[in-house]
Amino acid sequence: MLRDLANGIRRFDELASHLGIARNVLSRRLAALTQAGLVERSAYREPGERERQEYRLGGPGRELILILLAFMDWGDRHLAGPEGPPAVARHAGCDARIKIVVTCEVGHELGDRPRLWLEPGPGSRMRS
Amino acid sequence: MLRDLANGIRRFDELASHLGIARNVLSRRLAALTQAGLVERSAYREPGERERQEYRLGGPGRELILILLAFMDWGDRHLAGPEGPPAVARHAGCDARIKIVVTCEVGHELGDRPRLWLEPGPGSRMRS
Repeated sequence: MLRDLANGIRRFDELASHLGIARNVLSRRLAALTQAGLVERSAYREPGERERQEYRLGGPGRELILILLAFMDWGDRHLAGPEGPPAVARHAGCDARIKIVVTCEVGHELGDRPRLWLEPGPGSRMRS
Repeated sequence: MLRDLANGIRRFDELASHLGIARNVLSRRLAALTQAGLVERSAYREPGERERQEYRLGGPGRELILILLAFMDWGDRHLAGPEGPPAVARHAGCDARIKIVVTCEVGHELGDRPRLWLEPGPGSRMRS
């Protein structure tokens, strides 16, 4: 669902048919995501119809795109068939392909299998 | 579980206590991930004990780190308390902090809320 919203699908009926889930399930999930602040609702009205709600990623939800791009990248490399990836993400500014790069603050490029270690941070429960 | 394996937790007992899940559930999940080629098993034996299996990310599983880093990055920005992030990923080569950058092939840096569009790729079911 977050992926569909990131792709610009906004309307309840379209989300329901795209996801193939029951309307009450979709309704419950959208309510939970809205309450969590990841999704924003706004009203729209087609001529001659009643007012309806549409949904889009909002606040921190918009930054989930990074995670979705990382999933796409992984899927393209390991799950795509011989014909190639199902979709290509392009920069809205210049239409060049988007890629995700792992670097360090010194500026090294770390590649697909970065060698790293995890340091307990200031908010770690391991500390104190 | 994939996160724990990425963090270097390898042994069944440690995974079980870290995840707080039943042993039969853990056993089933490890078998499924091994069969999917994301996890590799290897035997080890402590002095005086029977042979046991340890588990680590293998093959495409190792490249899941990118997705986990994207999750960490998002969590650090939106879910970490005022005290700061629970963990800091550092480059094993130079100990500098690791960061994920969204760029395009032309070299533009796209920031945390990249403006992008999705083009149906060669493997899209939308085509043909």
